[in-house]
Amino acid sequence: MRAIAVKKGERRPVLVDKPRPEPETGEALVRTLRVGVDGTDHEVISGGHGGFPDGEDHLVLGHEAVGVVEDPNGTRFEAGDVVVPTVRRPPNGGNEYFERGEPDMAPEGMYHERGIVGEHGFMAEYFVSHEQYLVQIPESLTDLGFLIEPISITEKAVELAYASRSSFTWEPESAIVLGNGSLGLLTLALLRDKLGYDRLYCLGRRDRPDPTIDIIEKLGATYVDSRETPVSAVPDEFESMDLVYEATGYAKHAFDSVRALAPNGVATLLGVPGSWEFEIDGGEIHKEIVLHNKALLGSVNSHVKHFESAVDTLAAYPEWFTDDLVTSVCDLDNFAAAFEDDDTTIKTAVQFSTYEERR
Amino acid sequence: MRAIAVKKGERRPVLVDKPRPEPETGEALVRTLRVGVDGTDHEVISGGHGGFPDGEDHLVLGHEAVGVVEDPNGTRFEAGDVVVPTVRRPPNGGNEYFERGEPDMAPEGMYHERGIVGEHGFMAEYFVSHEQYLVQIPESLTDLGFLIEPISITEKAVELAYASRSSFTWEPESAIVLGNGSLGLLTLALLRDKLGYDRLYCLGRRDRPDPTIDIIEKLGATYVDSRETPVSAVPDEFESMDLVYEATGYAKHAFDSVRALAPNGVATLLGVPGSWEFEIDGGEIHKEIVLHNKALLGSVNSHVKHFESAVDTLAAYPEWFTDDLVTSVCDLDNFAAAFEDDDTTIKTAVQFSTYEERR
Repeated sequence: MRAIAVKKGERRPVLVDKPRPEPETGEALVRTLRVGVDGTDHEVISGGHGGFPDGEDHLVLGHEAVGVVEDPNGTRFEAGDVVVPTVRRPPNGGNEYFERGEPDMAPEGMYHERGIVGEHGFMAEYFVSHEQYLVQIPESLTDLGFLIEPISITEKAVELAYASRSSFTWEPESAIVLGNGSLGLLTLALLRDKLGYDRLYCLGRRDRPDPTIDIIEKLGATYVDSRETPVSAVPDEFESMDLVYEATGYAKHAFDSVRALAPNGVATLLGVPGSWEFEIDGGEIHKEIVLHNKALLGSVNSHVKHFESAVDTLAAYPEWFTDDLVTSVCDLDNFAAAFEDDDTTIKTAVQFSTYEERR
Repeated sequence: MRAIAVKKGERRPVLVDKPRPEPETGEALVRTLRVGVDGTDHEVISGGHGGFPDGEDHLVLGHEAVGVVEDPNGTRFEAGDVVVPTVRRPPNGGNEYFERGEPDMAPEGMYHERGIVGEHGFMAEYFVSHEQYLVQIPESLTDLGFLIEPISITEKAVELAYASRSSFTWEPESAIVLGNGSLGLLTLALLRDKLGYDRLYCLGRRDRPDPTIDIIEKLGATYVDSRETPVSAVPDEFESMDLVYEATGYAKHAFDSVRALAPNGVATLLGVPGSWEFEIDGGEIHKEIVLHNKALLGSVNSHVKHFESAVDTLAAYPEWFTDDLVTSVCDLDNFAAAFEDDDTTIKTAVQFSTYEERR
């Protein structure tokens, strides 16, 4: 079968030929339909993140997949079920985090991530997965199923944020999403449609006309140009934010968020910056966190429950939103186009087969 | 009646004579028994924190009080009830935070704090308080009742910390308290006796022999000398911490705590530093918060529910602990001694009257 991989020493995705995997006990064989591309894939390709499976000279890419069960192999699924796989897998026979269904809370070294670190991903015509890491989705969501993994990332982050404010009365009305990439936009729509924020903002650094700014404004949110209004100036220019969702990996945002927050607000950090030393007024930040009961939280990955929530979120998005968000779905023959990244690209996916295709 | 106050332009507590207050509707008249002294009092006296009531040339000190109801004045109390007052009061007829019993979540400007900012405190022979701000305590805790307010501060901080970890399985075993002052020690004993931490640490910068180090070790905790082991080195020297409780106001601790935390851990900040610019590796801190689902939370003040929890916590402390912690209780005639602060002082209080005294 064909697969999209990055080879050791190379920095571009290539087509490779691999044997079709055989499911072991507890695993189902899944025919891949679509696999999304995101910033993590680009980082893996460029060597900035992730790692090859032991003993392999290549890594099959892809962690945002949707597929159809080809061979249930004795699992709870039936042939034809549409499924989305989760990303983390236990490295050496498992550990407590996997046993309790919370692999997203496992520390570094206690997980592999398919398509990212230690295990091959889903950008292949077929993949196998243990049934506990497969989430069934409605057939009606098949075409957009590759959005469920990124949405699940936000489901978890928001769950953590709300939990952190659950010991007192918290009725958030204003939120800002830092970053106008596909994850930022998926989050903005979730905050609007699922959580009912009255006032939403999304920060980027693009000039108009721009397709992401169009989506932001069509969602009824306000575009904040970080070149004119840095995060710390958001309260003066707009308003203080009950929730800050950071999806840029720009390290200064984490610290500037403290000033952007309203009293009792929470900033959820998702970006993964590299080492960067800079000066802050640590006294002011510390004091402001304390005197206004503020919180800064990190969130990484997600688990089955978040995938299940993401199914509902995806089903509730307006059609125009996902139409505008997904800027291209490329056939396998033309896969390289899905990895191109310019100002007209928002979200892309590679199509490996169609649901209707003869099995 | 006599009261202990700080006058405008002065930086020391003095005795003043004031009329005995008359309770208004909804208020009880309380005869003051004991009032504790803490770091906030010292900051108020030195002018570094707080503010005078409108139109007054002095501020009666004291926010850690215990008293006995002298005149219930139609409230739910009976004469002889032992009560502890909360600290925050609504500034201009109230607001939503006070209405829902969460004045500790009110932003700056939406509260006064008795003995600290905008309203006189409890260091007077009598005080009045609306009944909703009085918490009845068992007579057996009368002598130590002035510890309930500081314990309530920790009850709230711990409640926030645990809430922030409530969306996943979190079974903390190790904790470090930064600061070996009275609040740090009260917290250490709470973490041991109420929350059952297996491994506890307390950070200070004192040489042995020292009475706080004696208490730390008698509690079964490990003393960490910050001059030898800075917060960021704690995991290498000892272990990573599920919970960090910061009670020093030393701003660098907030940021170093991220490194001290175990995966999925939470650092609760309580100190209130002033402005201080310094360099951090903001990229590393941001990344570590994200990849290990860490949290940094601020916590200030407390409300009635936390005072009620604090009553139980105080009742459960071993007798030796409070005996060793309270290093002196001074009569009003000798009040200045309660404001002295040297290495033999841990917790002091001023005694205004005794429970048994003839009313």
